Amino acid sequence: MPAQNDPETLARGLRAGNRRALARTITLIESTRADQRAQARAVLEQAAADAEAGSPETMRLGITGVPGVGKSTFIESFGTALIEQGHKVAILAVDPSSARSGGSILGDKTRMEHLARNPDAFIRPSPTGGNLGGVARRTRESILACEAAGYDVVIVETVGVGQSETAVADMVDAFLLLLLPGGGDELQGIKRGIVELADIVIVNKADGAMTAAANEATSEYRRALTFLRGRQDGWKVPVLQCSALEERGLDRVWESVAAFREARISAGLFHKNRERQALSWMWSEIRDTLLERFRADAGVRARLAEIEQAVADGTITPSGAADTLLGTFLKDAPAPASGPETPGSGG
Amino acid sequence: MPAQNDPETLARGLRAGNRRALARTITLIESTRADQRAQARAVLEQAAADAEAGSPETMRLGITGVPGVGKSTFIESFGTALIEQGHKVAILAVDPSSARSGGSILGDKTRMEHLARNPDAFIRPSPTGGNLGGVARRTRESILACEAAGYDVVIVETVGVGQSETAVADMVDAFLLLLLPGGGDELQGIKRGIVELADIVIVNKADGAMTAAANEATSEYRRALTFLRGRQDGWKVPVLQCSALEERGLDRVWESVAAFREARISAGLFHKNRERQALSWMWSEIRDTLLERFRADAGVRARLAEIEQAVADGTITPSGAADTLLGTFLKDAPAPASGPETPGSGG
Repeated sequence: MPAQNDPETLARGLRAGNRRALARTITLIESTRADQRAQARAVLEQAAADAEAGSPETMRLGITGVPGVGKSTFIESFGTALIEQGHKVAILAVDPSSARSGGSILGDKTRMEHLARNPDAFIRPSPTGGNLGGVARRTRESILACEAAGYDVVIVETVGVGQSETAVADMVDAFLLLLLPGGGDELQGIKRGIVELADIVIVNKADGAMTAAANEATSEYRRALTFLRGRQDGWKVPVLQCSALEERGLDRVWESVAAFREARISAGLFHKNRERQALSWMWSEIRDTLLERFRADAGVRARLAEIEQAVADGTITPSGAADTLLGTFLKDAPAPASGPETPGSGG
Repeated sequence: MPAQNDPETLARGLRAGNRRALARTITLIESTRADQRAQARAVLEQAAADAEAGSPETMRLGITGVPGVGKSTFIESFGTALIEQGHKVAILAVDPSSARSGGSILGDKTRMEHLARNPDAFIRPSPTGGNLGGVARRTRESILACEAAGYDVVIVETVGVGQSETAVADMVDAFLLLLLPGGGDELQGIKRGIVELADIVIVNKADGAMTAAANEATSEYRRALTFLRGRQDGWKVPVLQCSALEERGLDRVWESVAAFREARISAGLFHKNRERQALSWMWSEIRDTLLERFRADAGVRARLAEIEQAVADGTITPSGAADTLLGTFLKDAPAPASGPETPGSGG
């Protein structure tokens, strides 16, 4: 094992806030090699044994918005303002499309030129390659690594066009949706269900000639939010305005984040949510790995195409097909021959 | 094997349209005994070998709406009208809550008194017990059984208050949402995302003193639907009015169903959707069963509580916990020691 990957050394580097140790740990997290991912896990567990990575002293923020909404400018201004308040800010990205497009939403650090040079900021582009599940898994571990290295605000950026928002919303404490000025039509550019994920809605580019359009959008979204069912936690989702370009309205965004955080802590939901996320992450890894092993099984691979065709043609039932393939895979595993279904296992 | 459960005999009975054979087959489908469920599957496969259960000559309709919207009256009137047009109509229900409440939404056939006596109608209450996954699985097989017995319209009823709508929408060709007269507030009584599942929206009880309120609701929902993103299949979701009590507007509902069906067939989506549903059903059974076996594993059961606690406390990472538990379960299975993740396995 090369000394640079030694978990003890890396964990010590993380706790000292060493940027190279953090970058190296994330490289291990993103590795396609199982042994390197195991090393990364050892680093995180070593760091967790000392630090309080899971404590509410850190804040995990998700930020989404369609391309063109000004996410980079917003994060640059917002992150700089937070650092001026004494925070250390890490920025990660989840963009499963980056593997296909050949570039990532954070590939070019010149997008956040100012922040990239700030010693209290850490910017990491989206991991490339793999499916959303893999990208999400690695980003979750990178959050822990950033927190272990002393970054108390971790921002996870994603694009508002795919499935990635749900994944990001499920790994952060608060989810922010950035919108463009102008009402009506813009609502339709946003994927279904994304407005419902947001804890705070922000109309960006509320400046210059766009001021009237921004006001219109704000009213429109406030109205649209009344169409949604009330939240179980009682939080009333605010619709704010800001101009990241002119650096106006950013303090109100952070005030809103702080108010949301306070409300969640008072209600006992902040910690509970992190615990729920951690357990749901464990179960999603278990499910993914079971299915990976199933698909990789030689017996399953030999028959899958033929059986899927038969299901599509209707010559065998989906249940029968599932039974046949499971029989191949589980031949050595303990199989209860009959009896009632295990309750609550529909996961 | 008792003669009454002989797959050959039952399949022959189904093909002859014998109601007792159909009822018996569904009882086997709903059995908690694995051997009886296997018999049911043999019946369905035998019947599928001859009949064209998967062909577009049948229509599978999902119907949902909050309690009080008049689903029973609607189905009674609508089903009777369809039978008068020469159809044979089967009515199934998905109500996972029926196990807890001790009754089912279709438990009392007097709810559909007229239809229950009609020789061309077949009414079956929701299977009781088990989780939603189990109920959905059994209902899907029951649809095939009804079709094999010559019922060319199968209506699956569910309540508009839980997760069951998504499951039902994923087993039918068209999904109908019944609404109450009156706008605004009513929208909030409906679970998030349900309006988006609907292919046809119907404001029921558009009669007498409710006529004005029904008009208001119709406008309100038409407007609400414009807030939703356009559908990929190009279908414009109609908002219709009817009075199931006065038996008005039901012909327009069926015309809309027929128009939707025609549009889907012309676009090549009708069959494709059924194939997709069948494959997604197969994979969901595979996933559920893998997880059931995992949870039932003695090694996993011995350590699960302790490991979940450690994840909640943050002393081990979710990935590390998943690895440990998977190691216990998969110790005999082939394990690729390293290498890239299997793409597309994030299911």
